[in-house]
Amino acid sequence: MHLVRFRDPSGTIRQGTATNDTVAFGDQQHARDSVDLLPPCEPTKLICVGRNYADHAAERDADVPDRPLLFLKPPNAVAAPESTVTLPAGKERIDWEAELAVVIDEGCRNVAAADALDVVRGYTCLNDLSNRDDQDREQNWVRGKAFDNAAPLGPVIATPDEVPDDASIKLRVNGETKQDATIDQFYFSVAELIAEITEYMTLEPGDVISTGTPAGVGALSDGDHVEVAIEGIGTLEHDVVIP
Amino acid sequence: MHLVRFRDPSGTIRQGTATNDTVAFGDQQHARDSVDLLPPCEPTKLICVGRNYADHAAERDADVPDRPLLFLKPPNAVAAPESTVTLPAGKERIDWEAELAVVIDEGCRNVAAADALDVVRGYTCLNDLSNRDDQDREQNWVRGKAFDNAAPLGPVIATPDEVPDDASIKLRVNGETKQDATIDQFYFSVAELIAEITEYMTLEPGDVISTGTPAGVGALSDGDHVEVAIEGIGTLEHDVVIP
Repeated sequence: MHLVRFRDPSGTIRQGTATNDTVAFGDQQHARDSVDLLPPCEPTKLICVGRNYADHAAERDADVPDRPLLFLKPPNAVAAPESTVTLPAGKERIDWEAELAVVIDEGCRNVAAADALDVVRGYTCLNDLSNRDDQDREQNWVRGKAFDNAAPLGPVIATPDEVPDDASIKLRVNGETKQDATIDQFYFSVAELIAEITEYMTLEPGDVISTGTPAGVGALSDGDHVEVAIEGIGTLEHDVVIP
Repeated sequence: MHLVRFRDPSGTIRQGTATNDTVAFGDQQHARDSVDLLPPCEPTKLICVGRNYADHAAERDADVPDRPLLFLKPPNAVAAPESTVTLPAGKERIDWEAELAVVIDEGCRNVAAADALDVVRGYTCLNDLSNRDDQDREQNWVRGKAFDNAAPLGPVIATPDEVPDDASIKLRVNGETKQDATIDQFYFSVAELIAEITEYMTLEPGDVISTGTPAGVGALSDGDHVEVAIEGIGTLEHDVVIP
């Protein structure tokens, strides 16, 4: 099943289900292109993982860490699918990073890896937009990763049964494929990440864990059209404005 | 004026005002010790500043940075005044850090320093609890600073007129003074911090900027009673459990 949040033609925000062509809420059904899709959840925090694919760690001249490299994006970072995101002005390099995002279903703490998939509502696509100008010269990646619109998210939450263990993850810019990998290349699994994070903090319903990006990152330009496509979920699309 | 959130005797959450002895909401008035105080705001994010007093930077063997050293605490970090906070188990060193916290009054972005104090609702006390075991070996201070209960906050929001520019800030552990400074020792001012942060991100009503700690940090022990006292605001008290 594909779960979706949308603003219906009367302006009301609904949580419903989606097919390729329609979104439905109760006995209402709408053509998918007649409604505004919203971010599919409302996280209180996004916990992101760096260098979770060995090939991306290598392209950033870094080792895969001995435990998950964590960083945070706050709610202001979330942007809707099919939106035009305005990025920080005056930067040399703001990169795309296609990622599988895990959406949490229930409040939890101290979850054992063996039980961790029980707290997962499903999976969606996230573009972990990264302002390298600042990221590469700050201790904590706040200016680098937590700016407004740094996390386009969506378009739907696919329940776990929809997403194969070796799902493909691809990113295209203006139709050209830039990243192309499979999620079975994770260094730390989703279950291991949930166990590690909940040793320190409570996860709330709708919170997001983003699982890192494969090789192939690169710099965005003003006017670019970006697609993050993950097998079993669909395609997150957004446009880019760099003032 | 001192703004306060509390649970009244019937269980309803109210935002009212406080004196030393009473809390009031509309025509209700309660003895302050007859109600449960809550964190005085509900931040969507807390943006914290490291090394904003030169003497604390020196005791951590670090320079004052050339621009504000920012890090994030998510909402799970917030703990109520007068609460008992349970800290991560099995750590060698979890430190106290008394800080002046700025509470934002209105959603804002790209605020000039000259206008920045207009977006401030007021000031409160924050204890920036810091798990040094993990902080000192991770790129981003997530395990180190974003764990549950890492930000006891309160007891009230003092409107700006209540807090002198050279207000004293003190921290006591079990009655013994450990930190004793004045907020006119900031390296970056509140206005400069708001300008810098809002260049990158939107601040929401109730969001918190925490302004760094002076010298005198040290490790907490199980059972400690902590007080953060800031002139014009009052005293944030909490107890500590380290399992």
